Amino acid sequence: VARPTAVNLRWAVRRVAAAAARATDAAELRRLALAEAMAILEEDRAACAAMAEAGRAELADRHRLLTHCNTGRLATAGLGTALGVVYAKAAASEPVQVLASETRPLLQGARLTAWELVNAGIPVTVVADTAAGAALAGGLVDAVLVGCDRVAANGDTANKIGTYSLAVLARVNRVPFYVVGPLSSFDPEAAGGADIEVEQRPAAEVSTLGGQTVAPEGAGVWNPAFDVTPAALVTAFITDAGVLRPPFEQSIAAALASR
Amino acid sequence: VARPTAVNLRWAVRRVAAAAARATDAAELRRLALAEAMAILEEDRAACAAMAEAGRAELADRHRLLTHCNTGRLATAGLGTALGVVYAKAAASEPVQVLASETRPLLQGARLTAWELVNAGIPVTVVADTAAGAALAGGLVDAVLVGCDRVAANGDTANKIGTYSLAVLARVNRVPFYVVGPLSSFDPEAAGGADIEVEQRPAAEVSTLGGQTVAPEGAGVWNPAFDVTPAALVTAFITDAGVLRPPFEQSIAAALASR
Repeated sequence: VARPTAVNLRWAVRRVAAAAARATDAAELRRLALAEAMAILEEDRAACAAMAEAGRAELADRHRLLTHCNTGRLATAGLGTALGVVYAKAAASEPVQVLASETRPLLQGARLTAWELVNAGIPVTVVADTAAGAALAGGLVDAVLVGCDRVAANGDTANKIGTYSLAVLARVNRVPFYVVGPLSSFDPEAAGGADIEVEQRPAAEVSTLGGQTVAPEGAGVWNPAFDVTPAALVTAFITDAGVLRPPFEQSIAAALASR
Repeated sequence: VARPTAVNLRWAVRRVAAAAARATDAAELRRLALAEAMAILEEDRAACAAMAEAGRAELADRHRLLTHCNTGRLATAGLGTALGVVYAKAAASEPVQVLASETRPLLQGARLTAWELVNAGIPVTVVADTAAGAALAGGLVDAVLVGCDRVAANGDTANKIGTYSLAVLARVNRVPFYVVGPLSSFDPEAAGGADIEVEQRPAAEVSTLGGQTVAPEGAGVWNPAFDVTPAALVTAFITDAGVLRPPFEQSIAAALASR
């Protein structure tokens, strides 16, 4: 059983299982499963490279990028999804700087994204999630780039909790909002956001921080791992099959059909 | 010099200084300053009680309240501002439950607001700031109540960073958004939000957590203490002079003139 929200995990597990099912003995099973997993790894690398280049071309005039959670080398087999676009801009010697929302509760933005970018020599500024709205309203951001755990047939997008808020704040402040992800994260079996199951995570992720208790005993915690951003808030999807634009029902179906 | 954003601090310091200026010797100076400070304390208690009752009446049909930062007994001399409304509802045996956004970077929601409410026996659920949007979109909130550090003549409101995002998310999801604060926090010298200076806070508030470093060395931090919520996103102001409704320029001026 794979994480319910992340459709590409389920897809990869099924592919490896299907390959392994052709085996007639244990040694062949291991060989076939490993070969399929390596093929997926190579395809993931190629998909990351394709998304990065499509995003670089799309965002040629936008240099100050706000991103959420981690979507880079630590999260994928390749350059990443949203962060892959950043790497592609840097590799092309285009100006690029990143505002990374820290992404509570698990702080992937502060811990992972900022770490990746500092190591890559790309300017990065961390903000508390509460400050992202002020940054957008203050004109500090040219575009918002996020990844995706699962995209429904109509373009509704499940991604790390907080993504929906950024999408609303981007729209209100007329900043384009891009979702970057491979076609393997698109799930035609989910018609819309209501069909996507959102995983609830342990209360301790919110009520404790670095081993210290921050919320009192007796307080409840509501800790959904993901939220769903309505397709209407998405400017475009940057995928390994190119940039998909509204109306998304059609552009997503066409991209999936051409696979 | 008082914190620049919080106009009521400046106002209180000026009042005490003006009272003390009438003294002719050091002993009288101490006596006059203390008497004026005690008078302000009593007025603050009475203002909190008036706001709490005005808010209780206004929110008679709304029980699931989202609040931000701390605005209760720990933040004022009395019941509080936004949280005072919650206490008044509970004291009147009306149903009330609170969703407290944890309020990074300093976690006043998780640490202080949740602590106050648990101690008062009022149901409280803590959410990461990233989850507030999903709660609003999911229909879990009947009204948003926040405090204010400074309100301009046109109703633009400076308050704890993250307030603006909640105001936008409330509006998009058709949830009323109330600002609760005494008239001493209204500053007719500031025509609008652009006239309110926003304090920047140390980077370490974001880059460290409980003594542990979470963001890498080499990453920048942008850490404004407050943001400004445009008056157009405010449903009404709940003040010690009653509920002020749009158009705010007129209702605020009338309330201040009647003092």
